[in-house]
Amino acid sequence: MAEKKFLTCDGNQAAAHVAYMFSEVAAIYPITPSSPMAEYIDEWAAKGQKNIFGETVKVVEMQSEAGAAGAVHGSLQAGALTTTYTASQGLLLMIPNMYKIAGELLPGVFHVSARALAAQALSIFGDHADVMACRQTGFAMLATSSVQEIMDLAPVAHLAAIEGRVPFVHFFDGFRTSHEIQKVEAADMEKLRKLVNQKALKEYRDRALNPEHPVTRGTAQNPDIYFQTRELQNKYYDALPDIVAKYMKQMSRITGRQYAPFVYYGAKDATDIIIAMGSINDVIKTVIDKENKAGKKLGLITVHLYRPFSVKYLMDVMPKTVKRICVLDRTKEPGANGDPLYLDVVEAFKDAKKQPMIIGGRYGLSSKDTTPAQVLAVYKNLAAEKPMNQFTVGIKDDVTRRSLKVGKEISILPKGTFEAKFYGLGADGTVGANKNSIKIIGDNTNKYSQAYFDYDSKKSGGYTCSHLRFGDQPILAPYLVGTPDFVAVHVPSYLRKYDCLRGLKKNGTFLYNSPWSVAETKKHLPDYVKKYLALNNINMYIIDATKIAAEIGLGNRTNTILQSAFFKISGVIPYDLAVEQMKKFIVKSYGKKGEDVVNMNYAAVDRGGEITKVEIPAEWAKLDCTTDFVFEHNDADPEFINKVMRPMVAQCGNDLPVSAFKDIVDGTFPAGTTAYEKRGVATVVPEWNSKNCIQCNQCSLVCPHAAIRPVVMTDAELKKAPKGMATADMKMPKEMAGMHFRMQVSVMDCTGCGNCADVCPAKEKALVMKPLESQLDEAKNWEYGQKKVTYKDELIDKYANSHSRCSSSRVPAPAAARRLISRPSPNSLVRA
Amino acid sequence: MAEKKFLTCDGNQAAAHVAYMFSEVAAIYPITPSSPMAEYIDEWAAKGQKNIFGETVKVVEMQSEAGAAGAVHGSLQAGALTTTYTASQGLLLMIPNMYKIAGELLPGVFHVSARALAAQALSIFGDHADVMACRQTGFAMLATSSVQEIMDLAPVAHLAAIEGRVPFVHFFDGFRTSHEIQKVEAADMEKLRKLVNQKALKEYRDRALNPEHPVTRGTAQNPDIYFQTRELQNKYYDALPDIVAKYMKQMSRITGRQYAPFVYYGAKDATDIIIAMGSINDVIKTVIDKENKAGKKLGLITVHLYRPFSVKYLMDVMPKTVKRICVLDRTKEPGANGDPLYLDVVEAFKDAKKQPMIIGGRYGLSSKDTTPAQVLAVYKNLAAEKPMNQFTVGIKDDVTRRSLKVGKEISILPKGTFEAKFYGLGADGTVGANKNSIKIIGDNTNKYSQAYFDYDSKKSGGYTCSHLRFGDQPILAPYLVGTPDFVAVHVPSYLRKYDCLRGLKKNGTFLYNSPWSVAETKKHLPDYVKKYLALNNINMYIIDATKIAAEIGLGNRTNTILQSAFFKISGVIPYDLAVEQMKKFIVKSYGKKGEDVVNMNYAAVDRGGEITKVEIPAEWAKLDCTTDFVFEHNDADPEFINKVMRPMVAQCGNDLPVSAFKDIVDGTFPAGTTAYEKRGVATVVPEWNSKNCIQCNQCSLVCPHAAIRPVVMTDAELKKAPKGMATADMKMPKEMAGMHFRMQVSVMDCTGCGNCADVCPAKEKALVMKPLESQLDEAKNWEYGQKKVTYKDELIDKYANSHSRCSSSRVPAPAAARRLISRPSPNSLVRA
Repeated sequence: MAEKKFLTCDGNQAAAHVAYMFSEVAAIYPITPSSPMAEYIDEWAAKGQKNIFGETVKVVEMQSEAGAAGAVHGSLQAGALTTTYTASQGLLLMIPNMYKIAGELLPGVFHVSARALAAQALSIFGDHADVMACRQTGFAMLATSSVQEIMDLAPVAHLAAIEGRVPFVHFFDGFRTSHEIQKVEAADMEKLRKLVNQKALKEYRDRALNPEHPVTRGTAQNPDIYFQTRELQNKYYDALPDIVAKYMKQMSRITGRQYAPFVYYGAKDATDIIIAMGSINDVIKTVIDKENKAGKKLGLITVHLYRPFSVKYLMDVMPKTVKRICVLDRTKEPGANGDPLYLDVVEAFKDAKKQPMIIGGRYGLSSKDTTPAQVLAVYKNLAAEKPMNQFTVGIKDDVTRRSLKVGKEISILPKGTFEAKFYGLGADGTVGANKNSIKIIGDNTNKYSQAYFDYDSKKSGGYTCSHLRFGDQPILAPYLVGTPDFVAVHVPSYLRKYDCLRGLKKNGTFLYNSPWSVAETKKHLPDYVKKYLALNNINMYIIDATKIAAEIGLGNRTNTILQSAFFKISGVIPYDLAVEQMKKFIVKSYGKKGEDVVNMNYAAVDRGGEITKVEIPAEWAKLDCTTDFVFEHNDADPEFINKVMRPMVAQCGNDLPVSAFKDIVDGTFPAGTTAYEKRGVATVVPEWNSKNCIQCNQCSLVCPHAAIRPVVMTDAELKKAPKGMATADMKMPKEMAGMHFRMQVSVMDCTGCGNCADVCPAKEKALVMKPLESQLDEAKNWEYGQKKVTYKDELIDKYANSHSRCSSSRVPAPAAARRLISRPSPNSLVRA
Repeated sequence: MAEKKFLTCDGNQAAAHVAYMFSEVAAIYPITPSSPMAEYIDEWAAKGQKNIFGETVKVVEMQSEAGAAGAVHGSLQAGALTTTYTASQGLLLMIPNMYKIAGELLPGVFHVSARALAAQALSIFGDHADVMACRQTGFAMLATSSVQEIMDLAPVAHLAAIEGRVPFVHFFDGFRTSHEIQKVEAADMEKLRKLVNQKALKEYRDRALNPEHPVTRGTAQNPDIYFQTRELQNKYYDALPDIVAKYMKQMSRITGRQYAPFVYYGAKDATDIIIAMGSINDVIKTVIDKENKAGKKLGLITVHLYRPFSVKYLMDVMPKTVKRICVLDRTKEPGANGDPLYLDVVEAFKDAKKQPMIIGGRYGLSSKDTTPAQVLAVYKNLAAEKPMNQFTVGIKDDVTRRSLKVGKEISILPKGTFEAKFYGLGADGTVGANKNSIKIIGDNTNKYSQAYFDYDSKKSGGYTCSHLRFGDQPILAPYLVGTPDFVAVHVPSYLRKYDCLRGLKKNGTFLYNSPWSVAETKKHLPDYVKKYLALNNINMYIIDATKIAAEIGLGNRTNTILQSAFFKISGVIPYDLAVEQMKKFIVKSYGKKGEDVVNMNYAAVDRGGEITKVEIPAEWAKLDCTTDFVFEHNDADPEFINKVMRPMVAQCGNDLPVSAFKDIVDGTFPAGTTAYEKRGVATVVPEWNSKNCIQCNQCSLVCPHAAIRPVVMTDAELKKAPKGMATADMKMPKEMAGMHFRMQVSVMDCTGCGNCADVCPAKEKALVMKPLESQLDEAKNWEYGQKKVTYKDELIDKYANSHSRCSSSRVPAPAAARRLISRPSPNSLVRA
C-alpha cells in the first residue's frame, strides 16, 4: 500500500483522469451529470497537461451532442484517438454516428454518466435508460460500479478499443457514481502506457484517411453486398471478450483488485444469485456479507462487459449450485416482456443443462436510492415460494402492484464506519465545508472517505443535505446515509420543515444550530423530535453559529463555525489536527482576500468549539405523539397540494406511493403550486416607492421569479385593498386616467437577487432593497391580489371585451390591456 | 367481392391512404423509402381532400426529422391527431421525442418504411434496424407484411393509439413493401369512421394544452417521484394488447382477412414453427403450403403487435404440438447474444411447461432478397439433428461460417401465376411502361398483379429490371422474380453484361430487342445463352424496336413498342384488349403533347406486334461451355476489380461470399474504380473546339461526373501525346506562356447531360454536343492522361514546389497550380 497514490475525487474526475491519458482529441458538449468530465479535460488541456503519448489533448466544443459525435467520427477517421463525455438525451443524439463509428471499426470511447431519459418528465438523475438505448449500435459496453472501478476499468475501454477495433461506451451511474466523492487509488500513467498495443495502434494510424493514399469510405451499399459486409465484422465482436478479459487481468495485477467481464462475489455454493450492473453492486456485496455470515447462500454476478454479451464468461463465474437468479435492470422499457439485462440472461441459460429459475426486477430509476433493505427484499422475493417476476423495488406500487415490500432500513457497514448528515441551505457553504472535511480526513488519516450531496432543484436558498462516511475499509455504500451516527441541522427552521432525525442511530449525536438558549431551544423543539431524542438516547448539542458569525464579522457565513463544531463533537480525527487542517484550507480558500478575512475564519474555527450539551429529559419519551414527521396540511387546499406537493417539498417524495399520482398519469402537474409554497428565503427584498416610480415595468421584466408585477386598480378595487397599501395615479395612457397603479412585490417568493432595483431607470430609484422582516406587510397585499381572482376565464373575457385594464397580478393580460399598461416590457405580464 | 374497391398501389400509398384519414396534422421530413407517404399526404392536402373528421390535413415540413418529431409532439399536446412518415436515420433523430410522446401518453402514429442503418456503409434499402432501435421508447409497434396488410392494419395503429393512449410505430419493409405495387382492396373511410372511439377522442381533446385551463407539462422530476410516475403508466401497456386485438377483430370482420396480435398459419399439429415480422411472412406461407402438402408439419407465427409484446396472445396461437421454433430477425445487433425478436420469444417460453427448442436467425439485411429456397433452408436447419443457432440466411458466410446452405431457387407460386422480367436502361421508359401494364391487367381482369422495380444506383443510363407477376390468387411473393416465365431484354448489349436468362423456366419465353436479323442475332448471341436456350426449350422472339422507333419518329423511345410486343407474345390478356388499353394510357400520358405524339405512340403499339420467332438449333445444347454467365476478367487489373467490382457491376453482387470483402472490413473501398467501369452511356458528348475556348474552365466546374477536365502540357508532354490531339496555347497567366492547354473530355464517363456546352460563355461555343460514335478517339486521349500519372505524390511535390503547372487530369492541383490555371473555377481541379 505504501506506493499507492490516493486521490479524493468523484467518478467524473476519475473517468476524466483516465480518459485524458488516452485521448488525442476530445469533442465535447457538456450535459448533466457528465459535464465535469468535459470540463476537467478542457481545463487540463488548457494547462498543457500531457497524455500517454506525450501530447496535449485537443478539445473541441461543438454545437450539440450530435455535432460532438460527428466530430468524434471524423477525428477517429483521421487517425486520432478520440473521446467524448455525455449522458441522457445527449447520448441519444449520438446514436446515428455511433452506428457509423462502430460500423467503421473505429476505436472511439464514450464515457457516459448514465442518466434517465425525459419521458413523462425530464430527469437529470441516474439510471441506465440512455445507455440501454444504444445497446444495438455495435458499440462495446463496459459498466463500472464505483469511483475506484472507474479508475481501474476505464483504461480497459481504451486499450480494448485500440486492440479490438470496436468502440466503447464506458458507463457508470449518473450522480450516484459520477458525483460521489471517494478516496480512491489513482490510475498511474506510467503503468498504463506499457499496456498499449503499439502494433494495433500503428495499424490504426496507418488506416487513417490520408490524401497521400486515398481510399473511399462512407459509401452506400445496395442489397447485393450490404448483408455480407455487415457479417464480415462478426469476428471482431467474437474476439472482443477475450481482449477485454486480458486487459482486465492486467489491471487486476496492477491494482490488486480482481476484474473480469463478469465478476462473482459471495458463497462458493450459492443458490440465490443477483446479476446487476452499476453502483448497486456494492450494496449487494455488503448485504451478502451480512446474510452469508448468518448462514445464507447468496451470491452476486457483477456485469462489467455488457456488450459483447459473453455467455461463456458469464458461465465461467456462475456457481454450479445456483438455483435461483434475479436479474436487476436500472431501466424501464414499456411494452417489453422484460428489461434488457434480464432478457440477455434468460437467453444465456436457454441451452443450459440445469435450468435455474430466473426472474427480473427493476430498481433505482432516476437515482432512486437503492439501499440494503431493498436488496434484502430482492433476495427474500427470490427465495419465496412464488417469487414475483418483473417486480419493482424502491417504490410502493399500489396501482399495478409490482413492487416488493421492503423492510425497515438497516445499517450494515463494517464496524467503525462513521455516517453523518448535514442539513444546510443552498449556497450557505455547508457543502463546500463538507468537501473540505472529507479531504482533511482523507489526506490526514488512513481512513477511506465518501461524500455525496443531495439537493432539491431550488439552488441558492434551497435544501441541501451532505451525506458523509468515514471508515477503515473502502466504503461500499452507494446510497444516501439512512442510519446516521451524526446529524447536524444548520438551519434552525428545518426541524419543522424536514424529517431531519430520520434514521439517527440509538446513542447517536445531533448538532443543532440554535438561536436560542438551552431552555428556549427545548421549548422550540417539535414534540416528535423530543420523543425521538429521548427514545433513542441521542446526544444533543447546540451552538448559536448565527450569533457567533455576526460577532466575528462573518455576516451569515456559519459554515466554518459549524464544521469546527462537527470535528469537536464527532472526534472522527483529533480536534487539534482538525483545527490545524481547517486553518490550512482557510488560507487556501481565502488567502487572496486578505489577512482580515483569514483571521475572521480562524476565529470561526476557534469558536466552533463553543458547543453546549442539551440534556434530554426522560419524560419526553412519554409524549403523546409518534416520532413521525408530520406534514403541513390544510383541508382548504387542493388534494394535490396536501398529498403530493407538501411531502415532496418536505423531502419525503420517496415515500409517495404510485397511486398518489393517479390523476396525473401523463406527467401533467397543476399550475400555480408556488402559491402554496411560500419560501421566504430572501434576506433583502425590494421596497417600492410609489412617488419615484415612472411606471416603466422594467423591474417586472427582469425578475427571474416573476415576484414583482405591475397592478392596476379601479377605485372600487382600491377600496377593498388592505389598509395603507400605496398606489400612484396611472401616468399613461389616457384611457386609464383616474386608475391606480402599483408595483406589487411578493416578498415571500422573492429570492433577493436585486435585479429589479438595479434595473430601475427612475431618477430617484423606485426600488430599494430592504430586510425581509421590514416588508412582511407586503405579503398581505400580494394575498389580496391572489384572492381577488375568482377565476381567470371570467376576468380575461371581461378585459378582452372591454379593452379596459388588468387589475390582477395573476391574470394574463389580454392583448388590449397588455398594450395599455405593459409598454415597454410586454413580457412582464405575459409570464403571469 | 362485388362491393370491394380495388386499388393498384404500392405500400407507401396504402399507408398514406389510411394515415390521411386519421390525421389532422402531418409533420414531415421525407427520407427514402418513406418519402412517397409524405408526398401523397402533402398532395392530397393541397387538393383539399378530407380526413375522417371532414377536415383537410395540415401539413408542415420541418428542417429535419428531429424537427418533425418535435412538431408531432407539440401538435399532439395541442390536441391534434398527428402523424409522421420516416425511416432509418430519420427515425433515429426522432428517438428523443419518442420518449416524450410516449411518456406523455399521446396518440401519435409514425408510419415507417423500415430501412437499414448506415454502419460500414449507408444503405437506403429495407430491414428492421431502424425500428428495432426504437423498441425501448415506449411506442407500441405494429408490423405489417404486405401492401394489403398495410391497408387492413394501419387503421388499427390509429384507432388503438386513440383508445389506448400509447403512440404507435407502424412499420413495413422498406422498398420490398413500400415500393411493391399490388392490386389490393382499399380501406374504406366510411367503415373506418365508425370504429373511432369518440369518447376516448373527446377525452384526448379535453386534455390538450389550452390557455383557458392551464396546466404544467414537461416538468423535471427528481429521484423522489420519477420512478413512481414512470410505473404509473404500466396499466396502459397492460391494456393495449386487448385494445389492439379488438380493433384487429373489427378489421377482420370488415376485410374478411383474419388478424390478431399474432397470427398462426400452417398445420394444426405443426412441430416446426417460424416466428417472423414483415414481408417474409408471405414467402413462408407459400413454402408451408408446398411442404405441408408433401406431409410436413410446418407452421408460421406472424407478429403484428411487436410492442407491447404479449406473451398471452403469442401462446394463444401457438400449436400445442410445437417442438422446434426458429425466430427470424431482419436486423443485426453486433455484440448481442441474439437479435431482438428472438430474445423476446426465448423469454416468452421461459416458464412454459413444455420447452420447445428455440433458435434464431438473421435474414434480408438491406433488402437482401429473401426467397422460398432460403425459407426451405431455414426449416431444414430447424429439423436438423444439430440446428445452427444465430445463423444467417441469404448470404454465403465463409468467414465466420454462420450462414445456412441454400438450395437451388424454386418456383412455388400457384399454378397460373405468370412471372416476367424486363431488363431496361434507366430512363428508357421500361419501368413506366410496366407500371402501365400492371394497371391495364389489374383494372381489366380479375387477376391480381404485382410489380417491383430493381435498379442499380446509376439512375439515368443505369440498369433497371422490372419484376412483374400476374395471377388469379393474391400474389404472396415479396421477392424478386427468380424463375420467370418471360424475360425481355430491351438493351441489346445486356446479354454480355448481365445474366439475363438466369432462372428462365423451361419452355419459357425470351424477347430480345435485336438490331440484327435472325441470322445475325444468332451470331451475336454469347455461347452460354445459346446453350441455355437450347437446353431449356426457350421460345425466343426478336424485334428491332430501335429501328421501328426511329422509323415512326419516336427517336430512341422503344418502350411502347416493346410493351406491345410483350402483350403480343405473352397472351396474359387478349392482345386486342391490350392494344385498346395501351392506347387509352397513351392518350392519358401524351394527350397534352398533341395529336402527332399520340399518333406516333399509337403506331408504336401497332408495330409492337412485328415480332419474329427465332428457331433454336438443337446443336446449341452441345456447345462446349456452361450456361453460367462469365464476368469480364483482366489479370492485369487489381483483384478487387476482378473479384468484387465486376460481379457487382454485372448485378451478381448477391453471389459474392463474405470473404470477398475480407480486406475491406471497415467499409473502405479502393478509390478510382470508375477507371475500370467505362459505361459509354451517353448518346451525345461534348466536342471541344480549341479555337473558340477562352480557357475559363467553367465547363469543368459544372460537370457532375468530372468527365471534362482542363489539362496543361509542356512541349515534351505534348510530343508523347496521341497524334492529332488538339491543344491551344495557354492564354494566361504569364508564368505558363508557351505551354499547351486542352479541355479533355472522357467520353466513356460522360452521361451526355450537356451542362458543359450550356455553360460555355465563349462568343462561339467551344463545346458542342456530338454523337458519341464521332468522338471515340477522345477515349485514347483520356487514356493518355491516365497513364502519364505515375503516382500523385511525386507530381504533387513537383508542382507544389515548383509553382509550375498541373499537367495531369487525375492529379489534384496543388495550391499554386490551382491558383494559376483554375481561375475562376477552382473546384474543377479539386475534385479530381
